[in-house]
Amino acid sequence: MISRVLAADLPKHVGQHVMIAGWLHRRRELKSVTFLVVRDRSGLAQVVQPSLGQHSVGQHSGGQHSGGPPLPEETVIRVEGVVTASAQAPGGAEITGPVITPLSAPAAPPPFDLYRPSVTAGLAAILDSAPTSLRHPALRAGFEIAAASVAGFRAALDARDFTEVHTPKIVQSATESGANVFGIDYFGRPAYLAQSPQFYKQAMVGVFERVYEVGPVFRAEPHDTARHLAQYTSLDAELGFINDHRDVMTVLRDVIDGMVEAVRERPRLAREVPGLVLPEVPGQIPDIHFTAAQELIAGQAGWDPRGEPDLAPADERWLCEWAQREYGSDFLFVTGYPMAKRPFYTHPDPQRPGSSNGFDLLFRGQELVTGGQRRHEHADYLAALAERGEDPAPYASYLQIFEHGMPPHGGFAIGLERWTARLTGAANIRQVTLFPRDLHRLSP
Amino acid sequence: MISRVLAADLPKHVGQHVMIAGWLHRRRELKSVTFLVVRDRSGLAQVVQPSLGQHSVGQHSGGQHSGGPPLPEETVIRVEGVVTASAQAPGGAEITGPVITPLSAPAAPPPFDLYRPSVTAGLAAILDSAPTSLRHPALRAGFEIAAASVAGFRAALDARDFTEVHTPKIVQSATESGANVFGIDYFGRPAYLAQSPQFYKQAMVGVFERVYEVGPVFRAEPHDTARHLAQYTSLDAELGFINDHRDVMTVLRDVIDGMVEAVRERPRLAREVPGLVLPEVPGQIPDIHFTAAQELIAGQAGWDPRGEPDLAPADERWLCEWAQREYGSDFLFVTGYPMAKRPFYTHPDPQRPGSSNGFDLLFRGQELVTGGQRRHEHADYLAALAERGEDPAPYASYLQIFEHGMPPHGGFAIGLERWTARLTGAANIRQVTLFPRDLHRLSP
Repeated sequence: MISRVLAADLPKHVGQHVMIAGWLHRRRELKSVTFLVVRDRSGLAQVVQPSLGQHSVGQHSGGQHSGGPPLPEETVIRVEGVVTASAQAPGGAEITGPVITPLSAPAAPPPFDLYRPSVTAGLAAILDSAPTSLRHPALRAGFEIAAASVAGFRAALDARDFTEVHTPKIVQSATESGANVFGIDYFGRPAYLAQSPQFYKQAMVGVFERVYEVGPVFRAEPHDTARHLAQYTSLDAELGFINDHRDVMTVLRDVIDGMVEAVRERPRLAREVPGLVLPEVPGQIPDIHFTAAQELIAGQAGWDPRGEPDLAPADERWLCEWAQREYGSDFLFVTGYPMAKRPFYTHPDPQRPGSSNGFDLLFRGQELVTGGQRRHEHADYLAALAERGEDPAPYASYLQIFEHGMPPHGGFAIGLERWTARLTGAANIRQVTLFPRDLHRLSP
Repeated sequence: MISRVLAADLPKHVGQHVMIAGWLHRRRELKSVTFLVVRDRSGLAQVVQPSLGQHSVGQHSGGQHSGGPPLPEETVIRVEGVVTASAQAPGGAEITGPVITPLSAPAAPPPFDLYRPSVTAGLAAILDSAPTSLRHPALRAGFEIAAASVAGFRAALDARDFTEVHTPKIVQSATESGANVFGIDYFGRPAYLAQSPQFYKQAMVGVFERVYEVGPVFRAEPHDTARHLAQYTSLDAELGFINDHRDVMTVLRDVIDGMVEAVRERPRLAREVPGLVLPEVPGQIPDIHFTAAQELIAGQAGWDPRGEPDLAPADERWLCEWAQREYGSDFLFVTGYPMAKRPFYTHPDPQRPGSSNGFDLLFRGQELVTGGQRRHEHADYLAALAERGEDPAPYASYLQIFEHGMPPHGGFAIGLERWTARLTGAANIRQVTLFPRDLHRLSP
């Protein structure tokens, strides 16, 4: 059998007899010709056939079962024909003289027209029919952006000698933040779904020095908002033998750059997702200390956040606008968050013990990444837990990591869906989440 | 500060003043010199210092706090010194005239000696102290083999235009095999941990044509054996527009080859894991039909499996020995398993409806991969469920995939830990599982 050519490659085959395969994306019947658009993983191809009645019956009758009823949209078809240059066709080439063979028939029409340039359904309808909705090129491309971003994340870290790990998602203690965990019946014992691979990635610094994980994390978020998910994909990295959090920030900058460039290398995605705006990642992302950021806001923004232990959403928005004005940067690091608002494993700033060596990376008005240097001395962990009045017992398996010599280390976590939403301008994170899980949604 | 050199790179720096960093892996005090072995992510480095009392006090006193007590093993240290060629040293170079700076002190000795060539602890002790145990080069290397294998899996599929996905791990129905699922309290509703991404990867064939996922799957296995895990890492792939299962087998062959070659490219792993034996992957892996396999066994093996709906472990072992004798192959495909023993989504063999287009890939005596062509017509799914007396209602979100036109497709799943165990000859799968979860173990 003739081997298959992808839609996007048709222009390379002008004058040749080829076979394409895909879904019948759209049918447009004009008086004398019918245009069929075929969708495959590479894009769209135009097929031109004489309209029914305009042509002789036979093998080259357009393949419609020798004059049977027109095939419905989303029929899976194979098309053989000759590639012909055409200024009007997508990519400048179309298939003429087609012989069409249906491979699989739809049992029902799609929930909304997949061929319209814009998605005409509301979010709930899109999500209820996600397996079909995601065939729409604009929705599909959102997940290709996600996949490219993950590939860029990995490539940047692979090049820096990181080792990929896959850690347990069922854990014994709901330690990292007691609330918002999913309970599970583990052979009759209580257990929990992991809220992050934090403890495990730190443990693996003791083994591999530099590790990353791409995997699901689970948050029993009782909030029904545009940004809360019960499961999301976390891009986690952790590295040892750092001087302090600035070494982590350097790696993070390179990782973000790798993620952006991996998407940029796929220009089709920008065509298919009109909202996609790729940032320039500065060679050095500007940074500002938490205290200086609050003072800047107090002096210029019209409100006074000083004394607050964290940045409010309005603070983050203002700081991003400031970084844009001041440095032309879509990104801004804020360092030195107060220890009081960071997890107990955060390393304090040796010069200013109330401040942490933790940072956030702000991007387009909001926090995108949280990271920092972690404590590495066993005694410091015991002291930090005691100071917070926490019983060390539930942390026993975590604390053993630090009993046997751990280097100074730190890391960060990027929420994949949040990243994709910010790149594409999605108003609701569910638009860029593959089969989202939330307070109300558990299917499909 | 002088920038760090990795242990494995010392031979490139003979004659230079360098800095290395890592864990004090071993100390050997001889009469006039002390050998320190430093472990970092790249391997081991030897450091030679004059024994205490043999040298003048000062900065070049060996860094032992100017004559303080010797640093215990697993202390995290930085060592500056001159790289000197030495036939006795690992890699042919060692550091002399060292200045040693401790970065972090262990609070306790490791649970067993990490520097001995063989691991001296039993499996339970290894697993109880996994964060420390895995620092042992032989254990650590097992997980580098896993990481390399995953990289090879991805590279093979990326090169074939597959898209990576991340699908939900919390699902509404425990459909695929009713038993052995973990229940979860999902905001007050019952839900389950996904036993496989099967339904989602099929759905995504309708979107991307070719997809893969590397992620956790969960099985509430009430069995306490050397091969059962409650969580493992599944390497899943699925592709559309196939003719039948043979197209899937072709891709699987190339993927396995990519995984093997990715490990082979890291020769250090073979040195560190004596049990590692890499197979040759034949250009075409031999295959045999289920019925022919049973007849072969009946005729030659000394027992008669005919009439059984599946292969027994002894059958698989015998067939692997046969493939080795007959074809010199560590791998053997068995095709045409009876429909009765395959999941309802398995596509039947159009020529022999009692046989399936499902296959297993046997490797070194056991099944390694299960795969096959899936059904793709909506009506066929309804008929298959009816035939098994199953209510289609719990499958509603799965069945909608097939309502809107799905191409012929198929795929496979490789258990990462099973693969690594088979490559390294590990007797118990827990040896090559990062923080295993089983009937009894939920920590660390």
